[in-house]
Amino acid sequence: MKTRVPEILGIEYPILQGGMIWVTDAGLAAAVSEGGGLGMIGAGGMAPEMLTEEITRAKSLTDKTFGVNIPLQRPDAGDMIEVAARSGVPILSTSAGNPLSFTALAKEQGMKVVHVVSNVRMAEKAQEAGVDVIVAEGYEAGGHNGFDELTTMALVPQVVDAVEVPVVAAGGIADARGMVAAFALGAEGVQMGTRFLASLESPAHDRYKELVVKANDRGTVITGRAFGPVRVIKNTLAEKILQAESEGWSTEQIMEMIGPGRTMKAAMEGDMDEGSFMCGQICGMIGELKSSAEIIQEMMEGYKEVAATL
Amino acid sequence: MKTRVPEILGIEYPILQGGMIWVTDAGLAAAVSEGGGLGMIGAGGMAPEMLTEEITRAKSLTDKTFGVNIPLQRPDAGDMIEVAARSGVPILSTSAGNPLSFTALAKEQGMKVVHVVSNVRMAEKAQEAGVDVIVAEGYEAGGHNGFDELTTMALVPQVVDAVEVPVVAAGGIADARGMVAAFALGAEGVQMGTRFLASLESPAHDRYKELVVKANDRGTVITGRAFGPVRVIKNTLAEKILQAESEGWSTEQIMEMIGPGRTMKAAMEGDMDEGSFMCGQICGMIGELKSSAEIIQEMMEGYKEVAATL
Repeated sequence: MKTRVPEILGIEYPILQGGMIWVTDAGLAAAVSEGGGLGMIGAGGMAPEMLTEEITRAKSLTDKTFGVNIPLQRPDAGDMIEVAARSGVPILSTSAGNPLSFTALAKEQGMKVVHVVSNVRMAEKAQEAGVDVIVAEGYEAGGHNGFDELTTMALVPQVVDAVEVPVVAAGGIADARGMVAAFALGAEGVQMGTRFLASLESPAHDRYKELVVKANDRGTVITGRAFGPVRVIKNTLAEKILQAESEGWSTEQIMEMIGPGRTMKAAMEGDMDEGSFMCGQICGMIGELKSSAEIIQEMMEGYKEVAATL
Repeated sequence: MKTRVPEILGIEYPILQGGMIWVTDAGLAAAVSEGGGLGMIGAGGMAPEMLTEEITRAKSLTDKTFGVNIPLQRPDAGDMIEVAARSGVPILSTSAGNPLSFTALAKEQGMKVVHVVSNVRMAEKAQEAGVDVIVAEGYEAGGHNGFDELTTMALVPQVVDAVEVPVVAAGGIADARGMVAAFALGAEGVQMGTRFLASLESPAHDRYKELVVKANDRGTVITGRAFGPVRVIKNTLAEKILQAESEGWSTEQIMEMIGPGRTMKAAMEGDMDEGSFMCGQICGMIGELKSSAEIIQEMMEGYKEVAATL
């Protein structure tokens, strides 16, 4: 297995856990890191104090390297990065927004930077900004999604051809087959969200995990395609949003109808009708909850078996 | 390389050329078959007499196995299948529509049947219908596209897990990396459209081929998402259609605005503004025209090299 990622990030296996709002807390991040991957605390919904607490808690659970994921569109993204750096977190994962100033800020503080992109131009800009690892995330991924709708299969080799820094593939990967496929495309690691969402250590509501486990291949849909695409489980809320979009409602009208707190309703309350359950297309392949360590071990052992058949 | 596909279809390599309206004529199909893959005459825009002529012409160009692709939504699909069978074509490729009665018809005539699907349920139905090979085609593919938007990375392993018949991956594949990735996901072959569109033997208009070669990763878009999704090069016509869709025009209004003959305008006249240029997301990776034989040879040789790195 050819990969520069473990050495750069200080981890055992090139398997990253993607940041997921309300889902990737200290417990899940620590479990993934203990399993040999890179756990990441998703700071999306957290105030700076809460992030500090979660970092402290993660440190009490593991001595291994973990990271923090901070969406750059947050007005206080810079403050959050400083919180993470001061707390001694060595890896910053950023998504959305322009990585330029924030990468410089994080690197001044001695952090390594992983940046998520959804097209080649974003990858080139991330490389110019000096990021250490680029995550190329395809349209099949759960949660926030690029406007260009490039899939993992089409995106990864085009990004690999465009940049020198190591590329990690994300979107549509939940087992060893997906990991070997990603490496065949030129990736040097994989990042998974949905698979770790459906893990024993994930703090997502039981009904959320059950939705993921029971979903079939047609279980997800993109809402907000025109103004902010998000891949979610097809439920009552998702269908309401799609209906409004097809009727030509304005972005403002749709945003008002959606209202705040939908992802929290999903992750914390398990509100099947009113929650927004972010989830990737690979959910149809996820049939049971497993521990994060087991997910990682099965991928690494399976990798050799799958590669041997090629 | 583990694959049942060459033996079932009577070809040398498990590389299929997808049917493309106005593009996959006898010349291209014969070139692909001469190169060791499975060439296919795309009967989409042809009357029965023209199909007969093209089959005769392909036979004059190659002694190797080739097939005919017939979209099942054609009112005369049954007649077209009989034309192909009577002309001695051994392989029928079908897409869209229900494969049940047509598979029986083709198999009575001694043909092997390859059926294209875009979700797991369609694959299960195709298997029940008795098809010999299932092509699982992802959202990144050019031309007509499934409503579920499943990508190759997410779709292929889920289809492989659901059926016993061999699965061929399509969508987002244009080089050996994509082929190895497809096999890692459990596919036993690949089908390519866009790569063969940009071949020396393709009869597509030179301006069409140039569009494919020059396109970057963000070069394509889905039009008709609500009523009949088609992936095309982002040009004036595509933008007009997207605009109408975002303004909430009815399907009838959009269809009237589009009018007939748009794919012919693209493929035959190379009308950059008014044509509908079907094309897959992988166009950004295609940098030059090559002969079909070269495309196939590079994939087969590259396969071993890529697999050896895993």
